[in-house]
Amino acid sequence: MECRKYDLLTLGEVLLRLSPPANERMIRTSVFEQNIGGAELNVAAGVAQLGLRTGMIGKIPSNDIGRLARNEIHRQNVSDEYLLSDDETDARLGIYFYEGGAAPRKPRIVYDRRNTSVYKMKADEFPEEMFTSARCFHTCGITLALDEKVRETAVTLMRKFKEHGTLISFDVNFRGNLWSGEEARKCIEEILPLVDIFFCSDSTARLTFQKKGTPEEVMKSFTRDYPLSIVAATDRTVHSPKNHSFGSVIYEAKSDRFYKEKNYENIEVVDRIGSGDAYIAGALYGILKYPEDLSQAVSIGNAVSALKNTVPGDFPAMDFSEVLELIYEHQSDGPVMEMKR
Amino acid sequence: MECRKYDLLTLGEVLLRLSPPANERMIRTSVFEQNIGGAELNVAAGVAQLGLRTGMIGKIPSNDIGRLARNEIHRQNVSDEYLLSDDETDARLGIYFYEGGAAPRKPRIVYDRRNTSVYKMKADEFPEEMFTSARCFHTCGITLALDEKVRETAVTLMRKFKEHGTLISFDVNFRGNLWSGEEARKCIEEILPLVDIFFCSDSTARLTFQKKGTPEEVMKSFTRDYPLSIVAATDRTVHSPKNHSFGSVIYEAKSDRFYKEKNYENIEVVDRIGSGDAYIAGALYGILKYPEDLSQAVSIGNAVSALKNTVPGDFPAMDFSEVLELIYEHQSDGPVMEMKR
Amino acid sequence: MECRKYDLLTLGEVLLRLSPPANERMIRTSVFEQNIGGAELNVAAGVAQLGLRTGMIGKIPSNDIGRLARNEIHRQNVSDEYLLSDDETDARLGIYFYEGGAAPRKPRIVYDRRNTSVYKMKADEFPEEMFTSARCFHTCGITLALDEKVRETAVTLMRKFKEHGTLISFDVNFRGNLWSGEEARKCIEEILPLVDIFFCSDSTARLTFQKKGTPEEVMKSFTRDYPLSIVAATDRTVHSPKNHSFGSVIYEAKSDRFYKEKNYENIEVVDRIGSGDAYIAGALYGILKYPEDLSQAVSIGNAVSALKNTVPGDFPAMDFSEVLELIYEHQSDGPVMEMKR
Amino acid sequence: MECRKYDLLTLGEVLLRLSPPANERMIRTSVFEQNIGGAELNVAAGVAQLGLRTGMIGKIPSNDIGRLARNEIHRQNVSDEYLLSDDETDARLGIYFYEGGAAPRKPRIVYDRRNTSVYKMKADEFPEEMFTSARCFHTCGITLALDEKVRETAVTLMRKFKEHGTLISFDVNFRGNLWSGEEARKCIEEILPLVDIFFCSDSTARLTFQKKGTPEEVMKSFTRDYPLSIVAATDRTVHSPKNHSFGSVIYEAKSDRFYKEKNYENIEVVDRIGSGDAYIAGALYGILKYPEDLSQAVSIGNAVSALKNTVPGDFPAMDFSEVLELIYEHQSDGPVMEMKR
Amino acid sequence: MECRKYDLLTLGEVLLRLSPPANERMIRTSVFEQNIGGAELNVAAGVAQLGLRTGMIGKIPSNDIGRLARNEIHRQNVSDEYLLSDDETDARLGIYFYEGGAAPRKPRIVYDRRNTSVYKMKADEFPEEMFTSARCFHTCGITLALDEKVRETAVTLMRKFKEHGTLISFDVNFRGNLWSGEEARKCIEEILPLVDIFFCSDSTARLTFQKKGTPEEVMKSFTRDYPLSIVAATDRTVHSPKNHSFGSVIYEAKSDRFYKEKNYENIEVVDRIGSGDAYIAGALYGILKYPEDLSQAVSIGNAVSALKNTVPGDFPAMDFSEVLELIYEHQSDGPVMEMKR
Amino acid sequence: MECRKYDLLTLGEVLLRLSPPANERMIRTSVFEQNIGGAELNVAAGVAQLGLRTGMIGKIPSNDIGRLARNEIHRQNVSDEYLLSDDETDARLGIYFYEGGAAPRKPRIVYDRRNTSVYKMKADEFPEEMFTSARCFHTCGITLALDEKVRETAVTLMRKFKEHGTLISFDVNFRGNLWSGEEARKCIEEILPLVDIFFCSDSTARLTFQKKGTPEEVMKSFTRDYPLSIVAATDRTVHSPKNHSFGSVIYEAKSDRFYKEKNYENIEVVDRIGSGDAYIAGALYGILKYPEDLSQAVSIGNAVSALKNTVPGDFPAMDFSEVLELIYEHQSDGPVMEMKR
Repeated sequence: MECRKYDLLTLGEVLLRLSPPANERMIRTSVFEQNIGGAELNVAAGVAQLGLRTGMIGKIPSNDIGRLARNEIHRQNVSDEYLLSDDETDARLGIYFYEGGAAPRKPRIVYDRRNTSVYKMKADEFPEEMFTSARCFHTCGITLALDEKVRETAVTLMRKFKEHGTLISFDVNFRGNLWSGEEARKCIEEILPLVDIFFCSDSTARLTFQKKGTPEEVMKSFTRDYPLSIVAATDRTVHSPKNHSFGSVIYEAKSDRFYKEKNYENIEVVDRIGSGDAYIAGALYGILKYPEDLSQAVSIGNAVSALKNTVPGDFPAMDFSEVLELIYEHQSDGPVMEMKR
Repeated sequence: MECRKYDLLTLGEVLLRLSPPANERMIRTSVFEQNIGGAELNVAAGVAQLGLRTGMIGKIPSNDIGRLARNEIHRQNVSDEYLLSDDETDARLGIYFYEGGAAPRKPRIVYDRRNTSVYKMKADEFPEEMFTSARCFHTCGITLALDEKVRETAVTLMRKFKEHGTLISFDVNFRGNLWSGEEARKCIEEILPLVDIFFCSDSTARLTFQKKGTPEEVMKSFTRDYPLSIVAATDRTVHSPKNHSFGSVIYEAKSDRFYKEKNYENIEVVDRIGSGDAYIAGALYGILKYPEDLSQAVSIGNAVSALKNTVPGDFPAMDFSEVLELIYEHQSDGPVMEMKR
Repeated sequence: MECRKYDLLTLGEVLLRLSPPANERMIRTSVFEQNIGGAELNVAAGVAQLGLRTGMIGKIPSNDIGRLARNEIHRQNVSDEYLLSDDETDARLGIYFYEGGAAPRKPRIVYDRRNTSVYKMKADEFPEEMFTSARCFHTCGITLALDEKVRETAVTLMRKFKEHGTLISFDVNFRGNLWSGEEARKCIEEILPLVDIFFCSDSTARLTFQKKGTPEEVMKSFTRDYPLSIVAATDRTVHSPKNHSFGSVIYEAKSDRFYKEKNYENIEVVDRIGSGDAYIAGALYGILKYPEDLSQAVSIGNAVSALKNTVPGDFPAMDFSEVLELIYEHQSDGPVMEMKR
Repeated sequence: MECRKYDLLTLGEVLLRLSPPANERMIRTSVFEQNIGGAELNVAAGVAQLGLRTGMIGKIPSNDIGRLARNEIHRQNVSDEYLLSDDETDARLGIYFYEGGAAPRKPRIVYDRRNTSVYKMKADEFPEEMFTSARCFHTCGITLALDEKVRETAVTLMRKFKEHGTLISFDVNFRGNLWSGEEARKCIEEILPLVDIFFCSDSTARLTFQKKGTPEEVMKSFTRDYPLSIVAATDRTVHSPKNHSFGSVIYEAKSDRFYKEKNYENIEVVDRIGSGDAYIAGALYGILKYPEDLSQAVSIGNAVSALKNTVPGDFPAMDFSEVLELIYEHQSDGPVMEMKR
Repeated sequence: MECRKYDLLTLGEVLLRLSPPANERMIRTSVFEQNIGGAELNVAAGVAQLGLRTGMIGKIPSNDIGRLARNEIHRQNVSDEYLLSDDETDARLGIYFYEGGAAPRKPRIVYDRRNTSVYKMKADEFPEEMFTSARCFHTCGITLALDEKVRETAVTLMRKFKEHGTLISFDVNFRGNLWSGEEARKCIEEILPLVDIFFCSDSTARLTFQKKGTPEEVMKSFTRDYPLSIVAATDRTVHSPKNHSFGSVIYEAKSDRFYKEKNYENIEVVDRIGSGDAYIAGALYGILKYPEDLSQAVSIGNAVSALKNTVPGDFPAMDFSEVLELIYEHQSDGPVMEMKR
Repeated sequence: MECRKYDLLTLGEVLLRLSPPANERMIRTSVFEQNIGGAELNVAAGVAQLGLRTGMIGKIPSNDIGRLARNEIHRQNVSDEYLLSDDETDARLGIYFYEGGAAPRKPRIVYDRRNTSVYKMKADEFPEEMFTSARCFHTCGITLALDEKVRETAVTLMRKFKEHGTLISFDVNFRGNLWSGEEARKCIEEILPLVDIFFCSDSTARLTFQKKGTPEEVMKSFTRDYPLSIVAATDRTVHSPKNHSFGSVIYEAKSDRFYKEKNYENIEVVDRIGSGDAYIAGALYGILKYPEDLSQAVSIGNAVSALKNTVPGDFPAMDFSEVLELIYEHQSDGPVMEMKR
């Protein structure tokens, strides 16, 4: 499998995020900072930063805003080989406006992501060789929730990747503004037979999938109903918009083992957007790189997510050595240096 | 008529413009400067800056981006009394991305203005008293070009304002990306019987309305075919994106007179967007304030447009005294002071 | 009374605030961020943001800096109908320089607010119809402290508004750099017979008015000496320049009831200036909108003040729905969503 | 004379200039860029940049804004040894708001410079040793125009410097908003007997001093009426706010010679404020450094002024070697390198 | 040859450029804008923007500044496969400080590019497959001028690329601060036998290579002495730092033809750095894409260079369609649209 | 001794620090904020801000970046009389890139400070009068660590200052990236016989000098081995990159007394760079100003360091009155005002 061109291909919508500068509000800002993102692109970018070869599957306009997105994707060292161009005059990139919070003011989002180019993407627009080009394929519930047609395309792609021996990774990533819990459950239950690696938070498991029991029982139950290899669940506590804690558990079905480490406490949050995707990036990297020891996936996932929270934008900004140092210090009990100099 | 609540109401779409900082390009900018605009809103803002009472008719989302627009409209001292709120989840404000030029690089625009809240506006959403509240009503061809339904609403409003003795002002403002010349001609010819004040550039008159002859003959011909009182035509020369010249002619039907003055040469253009609307603002102000002497409309229109070119954003930024001083110096032959101090 | 043109008119000085960017110091900053403010204007802006019709009474220069102020006041949707223009060559807008703190460095202020246009304001410059145009009139101790003449004008206006059935609201807002406690007490005791709604912090009540007893006894005692309907007192704890707690008590004389709720703890303070005025805005809004249930005034006042602390500038930046959501969550005991998406 | 501590001391008001960013307008800017300046301080800063030892005489507040000014003066390497501190609570630094122009929009200034600390400066506040510490003393008409008391102080200082063998330099620098031409003439004629180096533009000479004849006759006539050694006159042509030409003539009485060179044409003006003071800085430097050859004063003065126009702020920003290179190229006829690399 | 992995590989030094914001000076700026560049990287970036596959050969530090460079190179869609990492503690990226000019102030450069990681690059650090991976190899005189060892490495690489059938492109790019004309001539004459495409300005040909005759004779003479296929010469006129004209001539040896078009006049220069490299990018693209018709190389080279001048930074920022439109309009005689909308 | 020209001269390297804006990362920032600093320059700047006369000894390039440094040094009111100019073409100013942290992300530094102008500094380049011009001389271990030659020069200067009765102050300031602990120990033990005032943290004393015992015993032991008058040790606790605590102890040998006060807790850290140097500045100021009562040195040192942490850049930004107020409040137990207004 090592000879595949990409370690990871992700499928999803590329979005333009527009945010007022730190602590300013959308309703009166004079400038918007631009960030290109999107749940699955964030994952691809994170995995690329850690050193694997990734690419993005989707469709974006061929206009200047599409070019802006493409330039940012290039900057992340994520391939746009399978990112289709929409040349039609109604081509548009989805937009969301995001404003960070400061207690007791909460973060706010305005979505403007309908009728975008990704809705026009069709399965047969992609070359056959794409389906044998990756070790792993990832997408999430947001993509399934866009509309019926996108969902069909996504499931078709997932099925074809699976057929060609690709690991299938899926994140529930439930968004109440896109579909109901019931819609999500039905749809996701249909694709779970295809999935190898399943990301689902404990609360979503309970609310959407009516799971009961301890968190461990909940995670395990998914592997009894579906042929999942790995289930991962994150645990975030929001003390305030500028102070979070974060941790996670990974369950491996074949060994019936749970992997966990102590949470990151008192994260000084600069921008929390994309920190869930950063976890998935770290965890997938760990799974792909160290499949024999999922404690790596937990440690790397937690560290990447914690780091992401401390930088602006949707993507993490790091290199692997920094992640390793953070893990080392997080796991050590002794005093740590303030910085190297 | 002096007792009417507004001197001018304008109907049209409110847009969010996003621009990279000076000389930066859309395809790689890290921030976008925000400007609220829209052809008819620009006119209302310009007339308000000169000192008359204006208001905007249209529909915008009730979300934070709609609030941003409303705050900026308030800042212009334009009333939003008749600016409807769209509370639906698919509410959106139209967006356009604009990048200024530097010779030989031309300015560029990306439109993302479909499926916006203004498309949902209906004539019966406005209170009856609106139609007797203004001395003058203005809209332009962009609004008519949006779609069939908006066009119908616009014509209905125009008709009702006309019935209640409101002066009707209309700017052709042809945009090739919204409709064809032929569509435009047909539609506009249907509304011209309602129009009192008609803004149409010489080139549009020729290309779209197949007019022939000298510019003056072209202008006059419109008043023979339709009961127009005033026809105004602007004349812009683009030496480079940063250097324009600008002038205009106004024809008054009842006196059969043409009003004109020497052009503004070598305008140091900072942002040309909205300079056409600024002309209309100045001209309408002149027409409403000094109906007996349209040379005022020409002078004020030219000066306001020239000034607009020198400031960033869609709106002019001035007060009336500055316009008067500029006109005085433009028309004088002697030396002028560099500045007052 | 519903037919009055304004829900609230406030009287006071409009100021230009100049601040270095976040964490920079005045003594070496290269830019100053501009904010228009002033205690009573902040109140008018806050009440306007919540949805009532407000206006500002005062006097500002007719130069470009006065125009800047007017534009910002327009942006707040506050009427400048009764904001006089000072055309004289010595016209000036008061300025203050403000620098935020970071523990243990405290915020700093430099005042440059003498000899400003508001000092020239005379009672007879205002039209008679002003005095019947508002449901409520508000001013504060800062205005009384400016000088003898301003004080006289303010008292004259207060008296005339009172005569025309306007609710009179007054905030002590003691500033040691403008007058002594003794001067303040004497002056304020003279106007208290005119006041309906009285804002006075517990510490000011004790230091300036020599009040003794529990906080509740202190508040109540004012209503025994003067015909006040409502007394409101705020309670701010400054843990550090970037971390405050805030709460308040309102006493209603006719029902002899105290209204209170739990404090907002660990407010992540971005800019504390204007947060006291924001409280008054929220409380006055509650009093005017829900006169039968002053618990609303407490909740809204506290929430608006807490929100104000989290945004830069003198004015709050919010809409009413956000305030309601914050109150709902503040009062609920269960878990709250991090954000809606 | 070489052993004097300073080559030049200048007397005048230190001002805080506040400007909107490039091309933005005062009436709606969200930030102001800060520049410390003042006609005589600009001269002292320019001479210091060229390498001589200079100091500023005046009075500024001891508050944070005064400290800001002092820090900027230190940055210019200008001594503040004789810059008094005003500790009173009404201490204030004069402010002016400046906005650059773009044709046909002209630059604009709003002054807020009354009642400032410099008005309180008294001649006896300065130590006696000051009067023997400098080779040259410079002030200008703005300082004389502030008020009667400042004028007296200025004349007293001028007289005492003169008595101790200091060269006296004076720039008419007529400002119509501070005094009338008649007031200026009277006052200046009284001090001209003290002056050695006299800066007066041709137009001011004609308008204010009723001079007639060729420019050379005008300049020469001053030396017949008063014991002036040197008269310098500048010649600026404002093609547009962003395009000026500049040149000058210097007349030396003892040799009865005029010094002149070709003008700088098509200066790409970034900020014209202080370019007149920069000329004086360059010319005074030339006079002090190369008293035997005033063609140096002309060349350096012109070059420093041209350079100043190309940088933001009130002060020039250069070093002497750059000035020499510019003069060399300006005076050569051959092709010049675009840049060194 | 179509199956080669890259269309173009370039060899050279990657530099960090630090520039003050527009019109500010290095000697007092408070921020530096960052741009990654370098003559050959600029070429690779330009060719990549036009749509071909390019890569950069060189060596940069493995520290955070090296990562910054790598991220920017990724953003340009230029491969860093052959960009070596320097892990040693003395690793450093070359830096240059650049300040733009405004007439009569000239642009200025401070170099800090000694002892950088590229000096440590050795020929045997690159994999053998590199030499068969590209259709074309490009480097320039700056790289040869760095030092003896770099020169040897460069010549070794050039020779090996040549041996494997790669087109060799070379730009003289003479920099007087790196070596003398005589050193340059000697060194370049040694490598010219390897070169296919030779870029040399007319003035360099005369000064450095002692060429005489008409420009066309000069160009042709190189092809008589060496087996060059193509010689290209640019022609830039610097009217002022903000206004240039630009054109070029290309000579094809086999057809003995000169290709030329009219110059771009009055380019509104925003940043001239990299505009020479942009020309080479456009010309190389034309040569590689349309080898049969070198008029394309001239047109594209000129257009890309003109465009580059109008954007900040070292790299162009464009896509191919924009270049085509510019060429079309440049070559047409009729009126052109101000912009599409 | 009062008649010496400087209170303090410091010897060391002047560095250009380049930092991304708040919370942004070096590996993707688009701008770098510039700060001039360097351990000993930071000390000189801090002492100058408190009111004493200081100067910097060292060597910097004579290019524009050297001029930038000189301008910033002037702004600090630190004399550059003994700061040599390096005119050679390889002159360079040392650079370091610094990025602040946010938990759990730590601050990061990239050094690029080799082969700089300071390495060329020689003892005989300084005038003899320098050695009698200061009351106190200060340098630190960083300077000794640069290389053998700099170390020799530094020791030579130290010796000559000592010979002329100058107090010698030395800060160990151990940097593991410049030398090993063993190298440091050896070198420092050689100079300790010259030192009067010795700054060494407790952890460095133990790790580098193999000291054992209580902190007090450690400090005292140095004074037994060497003729030190004063030993000072700081105590910083890094709760997170944005939250530190800070305190210190000073030991006076002659009185055998330890001076100490309670630590500053919960410092809201904006930029920690230079806070150690700020401590030394405050402590040296205290020692020089109040030699009879070293509790002043402790209090001022602690306060200046705490203040420094709250402002960006390498230098503190304060005046003495603010320091006194902070000390007063730090030492008082009662409630403190939020701010003066």
